[in-house]
Amino acid sequence: MRILFVGDVVGNPGRKAVKEIIPKMKRELKIDFCIVNGENSAGGKGITYVAAQEIYKSGADAITMGNHVWAKNEILSFIESEGRIVRPANYPCDLPGKGSIIIGSENHKIGVLNLMGRVYMDAIDCPFKAAERELEYLKSFARVIIVDMHAEASSEKCAMAWYLDGRVSCVLGTHTHVQTADERILPCGTGYITDVGMTGPYEGIIGVDKDIIIQKFLKHIPVKFDLARGSTQFNAVVLDIDEKTGKTLKMERVFKIINHQ
Amino acid sequence: MRILFVGDVVGNPGRKAVKEIIPKMKRELKIDFCIVNGENSAGGKGITYVAAQEIYKSGADAITMGNHVWAKNEILSFIESEGRIVRPANYPCDLPGKGSIIIGSENHKIGVLNLMGRVYMDAIDCPFKAAERELEYLKSFARVIIVDMHAEASSEKCAMAWYLDGRVSCVLGTHTHVQTADERILPCGTGYITDVGMTGPYEGIIGVDKDIIIQKFLKHIPVKFDLARGSTQFNAVVLDIDEKTGKTLKMERVFKIINHQ
Amino acid sequence: MRILFVGDVVGNPGRKAVKEIIPKMKRELKIDFCIVNGENSAGGKGITYVAAQEIYKSGADAITMGNHVWAKNEILSFIESEGRIVRPANYPCDLPGKGSIIIGSENHKIGVLNLMGRVYMDAIDCPFKAAERELEYLKSFARVIIVDMHAEASSEKCAMAWYLDGRVSCVLGTHTHVQTADERILPCGTGYITDVGMTGPYEGIIGVDKDIIIQKFLKHIPVKFDLARGSTQFNAVVLDIDEKTGKTLKMERVFKIINHQ
Amino acid sequence: MRILFVGDVVGNPGRKAVKEIIPKMKRELKIDFCIVNGENSAGGKGITYVAAQEIYKSGADAITMGNHVWAKNEILSFIESEGRIVRPANYPCDLPGKGSIIIGSENHKIGVLNLMGRVYMDAIDCPFKAAERELEYLKSFARVIIVDMHAEASSEKCAMAWYLDGRVSCVLGTHTHVQTADERILPCGTGYITDVGMTGPYEGIIGVDKDIIIQKFLKHIPVKFDLARGSTQFNAVVLDIDEKTGKTLKMERVFKIINHQ
Ligand SMILES: [Fe+2]
Ligand SMILES: [Fe+2]
Ligand SMILES: [Fe+2]
Ligand SMILES: [Fe+2]
Ligand SMILES: [Fe+2]
Ligand SMILES: [Fe+2]
Ligand SMILES: [Fe+2]
Ligand SMILES: [Fe+2]
Repeated sequence: MRILFVGDVVGNPGRKAVKEIIPKMKRELKIDFCIVNGENSAGGKGITYVAAQEIYKSGADAITMGNHVWAKNEILSFIESEGRIVRPANYPCDLPGKGSIIIGSENHKIGVLNLMGRVYMDAIDCPFKAAERELEYLKSFARVIIVDMHAEASSEKCAMAWYLDGRVSCVLGTHTHVQTADERILPCGTGYITDVGMTGPYEGIIGVDKDIIIQKFLKHIPVKFDLARGSTQFNAVVLDIDEKTGKTLKMERVFKIINHQ
Repeated sequence: MRILFVGDVVGNPGRKAVKEIIPKMKRELKIDFCIVNGENSAGGKGITYVAAQEIYKSGADAITMGNHVWAKNEILSFIESEGRIVRPANYPCDLPGKGSIIIGSENHKIGVLNLMGRVYMDAIDCPFKAAERELEYLKSFARVIIVDMHAEASSEKCAMAWYLDGRVSCVLGTHTHVQTADERILPCGTGYITDVGMTGPYEGIIGVDKDIIIQKFLKHIPVKFDLARGSTQFNAVVLDIDEKTGKTLKMERVFKIINHQ
Repeated sequence: MRILFVGDVVGNPGRKAVKEIIPKMKRELKIDFCIVNGENSAGGKGITYVAAQEIYKSGADAITMGNHVWAKNEILSFIESEGRIVRPANYPCDLPGKGSIIIGSENHKIGVLNLMGRVYMDAIDCPFKAAERELEYLKSFARVIIVDMHAEASSEKCAMAWYLDGRVSCVLGTHTHVQTADERILPCGTGYITDVGMTGPYEGIIGVDKDIIIQKFLKHIPVKFDLARGSTQFNAVVLDIDEKTGKTLKMERVFKIINHQ
Repeated sequence: MRILFVGDVVGNPGRKAVKEIIPKMKRELKIDFCIVNGENSAGGKGITYVAAQEIYKSGADAITMGNHVWAKNEILSFIESEGRIVRPANYPCDLPGKGSIIIGSENHKIGVLNLMGRVYMDAIDCPFKAAERELEYLKSFARVIIVDMHAEASSEKCAMAWYLDGRVSCVLGTHTHVQTADERILPCGTGYITDVGMTGPYEGIIGVDKDIIIQKFLKHIPVKFDLARGSTQFNAVVLDIDEKTGKTLKMERVFKIINHQ
């Protein structure tokens, strides 16, 4: 089974890139399923109903989130009824939304699990405990399990991968918006990359206009973030997974730059 | 001019990899100068006189540091007289050691500048201001200037690169111990990568034994860190720099795995 | 019922002050029970078996802890069998030790609950959820419930107090080592103070030698902490609690300075 | 000389309390000068021109700020021409506004210095270095020097007090919004308190509606802060300073609750 996982889609430029590239890749590379991290897809922070629909139309089968999941207030009105959005499973259990879902077809089921780190981030529940709890459930339905570990610290993402090695198909880091070059398959078959990267403005700083960020660092005066203009990058990984064992056989990074004018 | 920059060398495994690989690469790729981040070279934290000598013997022309620069107390006894060690320039100005140095030969001078980020790290002086101050000095001696920006947050490293674009040859991120795949040459000629990565144990978590780190995350009980055993990774970048302009012409990542048994 | 709660006891000076003052206060003020925060009682960090015995001998009926609970390794060998030590209830549930205990005599039972904040501290489990869970249990045994909320941020401690108002006898903040002047009884009868303060060296900075701390702030070089010498302070609160309702009727701060030479 | 220093004034309730209490205290206690921390005076975050005028009219001779100094954009338009507002001196030196000012009359000059901590706060310049620089200047004009050290960590505020002991009249902590009970005069004559406290809503959590803050801790969903309703607290210190030596002779906390319905 071939899966395409796309890193944090940022704003309109990110959604455009997704619309342009996913259908083509699905066709050309015979992608079976596509999962997209959409925590920044609406204006750079959070997601709206409209942004989610746009991402589905581009070919995504599921959307994972992260620390910005609640940034757009309206998500509270649709996340419960949305079967294809997963938000970090270690948010308090009384929050709306699901931490893991099953997607795919009858004979090709895929578990999708979203977790969030706590190092340098909001102190929510333990992602390791949450992973145990969700896997208990997912395991009875799916052998292929994709984990989006949304975290800042490389050590926490890497620890999760080793912790789940052999129990999930892959642990894919997101959040730093910078793709890492350390993709590998761990000894027991779990694919791992510290960060898939970002799909959004290429000429900025993690998607944001570079002059704004530089001024922020120089002056420490609060600023309004605007997305950067110019080219767009598309960051993703393509995974070949053995459906019988759930193990990752092959893993390849994708780093495309488009709209270069 | 061709320069090899090696990411955070961790402990004995890291130093061994350096000894094995640097001389060969220098020969085969005709490397002119080699710079090594050595902040973890002694036992995983800090540097000792002996570890520094070992790194020089392996072919390094300069050693950059980071937040662990003061971890081994003995550095206070030799950093002042050590002409080839640079520590983050934005530590308070009355601390021993230099934040930038000139290396190379008469007609091939290279400025080496070490900076440290402040996001999720110790709150020292402004790295942007420190860069301005050090560049003022370096510019009169060298056209080629290599910057090691040791920082946690991708945004801060990237901001430094854009801030210095056209004024230094490259801004090379270090500290996360995970190599990133975003190497590029910015519009005005400054080479940039968010993190060069780590040279040290491959079968661990940022160099440390994985079971120790996992237990730390699960239990939150203080632990003594041990380096991981097994294979070793060597992470670096090779830069081709135009000596006349100081601009980076080409930049290539190196990710080797050795001692695989 | 009159209860004496003593703020973070720091090292030998703190234990000496406890030995000198608690017995006298118990006698003079007719204290019924005494609870002591002992997270810094052994050398300034953590607790040992010997330090705990010394505190009991001085008249403490229970010892609460905090983020330094695991600092001395030996605690792992005795915390399980120790009936009078409580450690933050929101540490992962598979860790040794208890998050709440019942002390007192047959007809005068007191629940003691220890919680830890997460703002600017280690990201453990939710203290609010942990409080609910422990209270469920404690409520069936005791009407009088003393909560030690060990936290850095004033907002988190105050939020816990309002959250538990009417359900526990008091929420007493610890950890900053500075006594606050905001003691009050909330509308539903829960006594609250943001921080009880510290029992330890008076001539230092939160117990530590002042020159060491100042050098740390000036130079950012790691240092070994030594306790300050000179006078000692004793920080505590005395609570009068209605045993029938569990409500706090009166609450008084204690700030003594002793051994002034 | 008798000085009244008022802790963080929060929003409309805070400004009302200031208007009601300062004139009366000035009269009754023969206060010579009054300084007010106004970083939260406009709506709970930042200051506006109108809020500043209101505070002056209530009897303040100077306004100190803190980490919220830039929260209301309009401050950039008037801070330069405002002779009586001081903002933390360790913000980058090219920012508008002054880090220290001289107030008072010909023969009764008072230096007012504002500093900000960096522990758990934004990483700006070193407050200790900034203090040295500003004192150099202030010392030639005034013997009486009031320092508002706006910081989160008790250790950093206390370190500043010991660092400046004998060189300034007092170091008054602000920012936590909770008054501490540790006021003292250090051996060389500098008055110190870890936090003067807050002047604003009494029935909330650091001024904010308590239900909002509790929900924030329980759910981790971003919320809009509203000020709490009900009674208001007025937190301040009164200092008696020897004008000849600049030393603090006496220091008294003020904690009033008003508008109790
Ligand atoms: Fe993101
Ligand atoms: Fe994120
Ligand atoms: Fe490192
Ligand atoms: Fe580092
Ligand atoms: Fe403590
Ligand atoms: Fe503590
Ligand atoms: Fe404030
Ligand atoms: Fe503040």
